[in-house]
Amino acid sequence: MSDFKERAEALDTADELAALRELFILDDSVYLDGNSLGALPRHVPARMQDVITREWGALRIRSWDESGWWTAPERIGDRIAPLVGAAPGQIVVGDSTSVNVFKAVVAATRLAGEGRDEILVDATTFPTDGYIAGSAARMTGHRVVPVTPADVRSALGPRTAAVLLNHVDYRTGRLHDLPGLTAAAHEAGALAVWDLCHSAGALPVGLDAHGVDLAVGCTYKYLNGGPGSPAYLYVAERHQTVFDSPLPGWTSHADPFAMTPGYAPADGSVRGRVGTPDILSMLALEASLDVWDGVSVDSVRAKSLALTDFFLECVAAYVPEGRVAPVTPAAHAERGSQVSLRCDDAEAVMRALIERGVVGDLRRPDVLRFGFTPLYVGFADAERAARILAEVLAV
Amino acid sequence: MSDFKERAEALDTADELAALRELFILDDSVYLDGNSLGALPRHVPARMQDVITREWGALRIRSWDESGWWTAPERIGDRIAPLVGAAPGQIVVGDSTSVNVFKAVVAATRLAGEGRDEILVDATTFPTDGYIAGSAARMTGHRVVPVTPADVRSALGPRTAAVLLNHVDYRTGRLHDLPGLTAAAHEAGALAVWDLCHSAGALPVGLDAHGVDLAVGCTYKYLNGGPGSPAYLYVAERHQTVFDSPLPGWTSHADPFAMTPGYAPADGSVRGRVGTPDILSMLALEASLDVWDGVSVDSVRAKSLALTDFFLECVAAYVPEGRVAPVTPAAHAERGSQVSLRCDDAEAVMRALIERGVVGDLRRPDVLRFGFTPLYVGFADAERAARILAEVLAV
Repeated sequence: MSDFKERAEALDTADELAALRELFILDDSVYLDGNSLGALPRHVPARMQDVITREWGALRIRSWDESGWWTAPERIGDRIAPLVGAAPGQIVVGDSTSVNVFKAVVAATRLAGEGRDEILVDATTFPTDGYIAGSAARMTGHRVVPVTPADVRSALGPRTAAVLLNHVDYRTGRLHDLPGLTAAAHEAGALAVWDLCHSAGALPVGLDAHGVDLAVGCTYKYLNGGPGSPAYLYVAERHQTVFDSPLPGWTSHADPFAMTPGYAPADGSVRGRVGTPDILSMLALEASLDVWDGVSVDSVRAKSLALTDFFLECVAAYVPEGRVAPVTPAAHAERGSQVSLRCDDAEAVMRALIERGVVGDLRRPDVLRFGFTPLYVGFADAERAARILAEVLAV
Repeated sequence: MSDFKERAEALDTADELAALRELFILDDSVYLDGNSLGALPRHVPARMQDVITREWGALRIRSWDESGWWTAPERIGDRIAPLVGAAPGQIVVGDSTSVNVFKAVVAATRLAGEGRDEILVDATTFPTDGYIAGSAARMTGHRVVPVTPADVRSALGPRTAAVLLNHVDYRTGRLHDLPGLTAAAHEAGALAVWDLCHSAGALPVGLDAHGVDLAVGCTYKYLNGGPGSPAYLYVAERHQTVFDSPLPGWTSHADPFAMTPGYAPADGSVRGRVGTPDILSMLALEASLDVWDGVSVDSVRAKSLALTDFFLECVAAYVPEGRVAPVTPAAHAERGSQVSLRCDDAEAVMRALIERGVVGDLRRPDVLRFGFTPLYVGFADAERAARILAEVLAV
């Protein structure tokens, strides 16, 4: 055990991202739930105090122009863009992930054109994607074909309009082959729509490089935007002039303040907007993104893999044989930034872990989830989490 | 002129709501744009500091339960309910008004059943309602019939599925006959969907009393929830078990944390939820609603009418003949809580007014808008606004 503690210390000392932890408000618990709600960046409260008291309280309506509120959705989109491998002008922030899935799936079916009546939907993904895709299919005359990502290639065909996949599975932590599956969709003449909730901010995505058509993601996990901070929509530049939103709200209009009865969509990412943006949540996200200044996603990925490798090693060494089984793949190419462990008494175990200061979460019925946020989780945290897990399981 | 100043002073002295002004952060300008963005309630910054530093920063993920984040949408809906004449359990907060219009209109067409293929849409309303209704119609096989509210009765018929109307017109300030038009829709077998953006918090709505089917509204105008604070959806209790949302996100599921692939809607107002709620914007709204404790909407309405009466009187007395013409109806039964004045050089006039500390806004091409928020606008404000308007127009 002391061997792992020493290794953790050495790894933390050599960690080039270690200093970033100071940018966050943390305590003496081990927070491995940043894949559900990211920690609070230290400078955000003061920034929000200014937004509330000066921008809202003193400037009031003038802030829509003078404080840049009106352009926040596309401006913040451009801050997220480099983290997911997108050139500027393709991402707009706003609404929830579910609402953005609706926009993306409906738009994808319209882009696919006539004669394609199937939407392949990742059957293993976070369920809201399937629920919303089901509604989109119902309203556009398509049908949902549930598939596991492994079966996507064989399910693709001349009837496929679009494929909706999760980059990293929320339950298992499995990383899917975004480049390969996007290419396969394109070969079949279909569009690829990716949900990046569990990958953005944790690993390189490469939206532009891999030719993804549309993508959505949340911002409150590895992007630390705050509880329920607004989600985002990526529409590849080549699709923007024909992107046809099912939610053509007034803020996506070419001339919103003309307030004309006829709808004429704006150009660019703005076309993905809907209603008035929720400024407080949005500007907390914008401030939170400051922690990424000068940080490369490649170095985050390298640390993430080292952390999850080390945690799995500690678990294998510490935990009594047979008490837990990793669900997350061992292969780096198939692993996101979390480790999921199957455990018979998962609910009681997670409760005990949290009581002892190791905060992960549970996915019913039997999965313990541990998310590793490289910006603020270190190797000593990983060792301690595995050690306390072993103690809990030994009881 | 001194006569009006004296009357203003007497009216302010007798105003039973006058003390509420102290609950808000204001300055020495006359803020008549609360119908666009309500002023900041004084206690909100401290509350939000606690939400950000303690609930997010210290409790993190535990706040979904321990700080009541998860149930905020329906809890805050129940706070808004008495302000719009709804019993508890029928309003849920979340998303933008545009997104809620989509839910409401699609759901209304589904409730109306087969054989009714028309949606009557207020052609004079804020345009997002028309844009979104157009999308809803396109996706459900209906067609939009634009009508002025005055023509609704003659346009209703056996083909009408639903009517989407604005309670108060954003441009003219005209109050429409919600009880009468709702009854007319019902007589024709159609559903009535009301947009309350410009009436909630300014005048009695009586959703339950008048049998409204569905309603939506924003919260950043007379409800002072903050910039882009989340909107709400009202689904009358009698429709809730068959309310069929086009945006069935995971938080509207009967058992959201079971995360099952099949969608099963929750009962009650929760069914109108979509994705993860934007907690910061939502809790700022919740705090802002505290200013309504002990305030009756009837007294707000009485003051609102007195304020707009007085302002119109001052304008008539001060402003050179023919320079402006009221667009807002004189009859109380047809007036919301704003006064719109047609003015040839409206843009330049509003700019000059704002420079002199009278903050209204402009609706292109030629409408000056002055919103009267009875919670923090007084009679001296109304007199001063009219006086400065006259000065500007005399130049």
